[in-house]
Amino acid sequence: MSTKPVLYTSLSPALLHLYDLSNSVVVIIDVFRATSTIAAALHNGARAVIPVDSVPKAIEMGKNIDGIVAGERDGLIAEGLQHGNSPLEYSRNFIENRNLVLTTTNGTRLLQMALDRNASTIISGSFPNLSAVCSFLINEGKNVVLGCAGWKDRFNLEDTLFAGAVIEQVQEHFSIHCDSSLMATTLYQKYANDLLGFAPQLTHYHRLVKRIGLIKDIEFCLTPDVANVLPVYQDGKLVVKK
Amino acid sequence: MSTKPVLYTSLSPALLHLYDLSNSVVVIIDVFRATSTIAAALHNGARAVIPVDSVPKAIEMGKNIDGIVAGERDGLIAEGLQHGNSPLEYSRNFIENRNLVLTTTNGTRLLQMALDRNASTIISGSFPNLSAVCSFLINEGKNVVLGCAGWKDRFNLEDTLFAGAVIEQVQEHFSIHCDSSLMATTLYQKYANDLLGFAPQLTHYHRLVKRIGLIKDIEFCLTPDVANVLPVYQDGKLVVKK
Repeated sequence: MSTKPVLYTSLSPALLHLYDLSNSVVVIIDVFRATSTIAAALHNGARAVIPVDSVPKAIEMGKNIDGIVAGERDGLIAEGLQHGNSPLEYSRNFIENRNLVLTTTNGTRLLQMALDRNASTIISGSFPNLSAVCSFLINEGKNVVLGCAGWKDRFNLEDTLFAGAVIEQVQEHFSIHCDSSLMATTLYQKYANDLLGFAPQLTHYHRLVKRIGLIKDIEFCLTPDVANVLPVYQDGKLVVKK
Repeated sequence: MSTKPVLYTSLSPALLHLYDLSNSVVVIIDVFRATSTIAAALHNGARAVIPVDSVPKAIEMGKNIDGIVAGERDGLIAEGLQHGNSPLEYSRNFIENRNLVLTTTNGTRLLQMALDRNASTIISGSFPNLSAVCSFLINEGKNVVLGCAGWKDRFNLEDTLFAGAVIEQVQEHFSIHCDSSLMATTLYQKYANDLLGFAPQLTHYHRLVKRIGLIKDIEFCLTPDVANVLPVYQDGKLVVKK
């Protein structure tokens, strides 16, 4: 019998309850754009990213800390806030040594669900910090659930492609018997060499690029290792794992 | 603007609530093996297949009609029943002019969910009746939800591959903006020429073949158009659409 830890992929927050999180590292995946933005902000020196699930809570939290309050709803800067969910907003000049309070449509909600279900460890993953995620998973040697945030509980391809990218790098260290993971690697193998060329087929691409004009965001979010830190959730905050 | 009807793919019963079924044809897809068995029985002259969601209900129903009571739990013939969920059990000799009361782990549950959510029309789809399903969808010209039964709410590849096979044939008649459908067609294009060669990678293949020895069932369930009838749900029964 194999003694390798097991790895599963959850394709939507609405499927997360099917997996045992209590002894697992859960990777929160929201490629467009929450987890890419979290990686960018921490890579550029943010002290911490504080994910919260509502705009009023984010504003309230912002009053008590030295930091930026930011958030997105349906792809746009959330009403009542000045900053949104674009990784390119969080340059070193702007974010270094400050906290970022962040609320988003899908990613922060999934993180809250993982907390509610007693995930053992929660980290955040995206192409910009792909290698950091893979190294951590291999070194920890614990069970893993790759949690795709999707879009309002619908399956999306970009989060699944990232799951596939992770599996491709870590698979020899895990026991993987999961059709979702097999599908994710199949897709990733097909599109790995041309993620940007594939992007215009994604429903979320249309939301972000055709309606909101965020092509540079998309490029950043699909580029591996440009913000290669490991955000770990501790005491209500995502901080860089030292 | 396009006036084509829309098509969505629901990857799991746990995602079915995300789609409006009230003006849609819902295709119930449970490749291994419920919907393949339904096609086989009706193709071989069964009067009707009566799907029910529990073994006791199936036994009770069987007392009132001239027919076979059959069912499966976890891939095996359900306790208390003499017949299971193998399409090869339902030869013409055995099933012609009889009713088949059928209860299964995933397919009959999904059908009940579609009923509860007021689906406009419910049909059952599998590789053995692929062409009949596609012709019906094109001729109806209504919105479509391809409903994958999965395995206990988990995503599975064989149902998704069938969704991809349908989309491949009908896509020019529908407006499709749905990452699940795009993923399904991508997978189908990759594996269409060697479905049987791909099968050993599926988690459900291991359940059915390695544990239960059902390789001939798998072959039947992956062969297009060998039982090419269209089962339509009417008044509590699946009957062949004339």
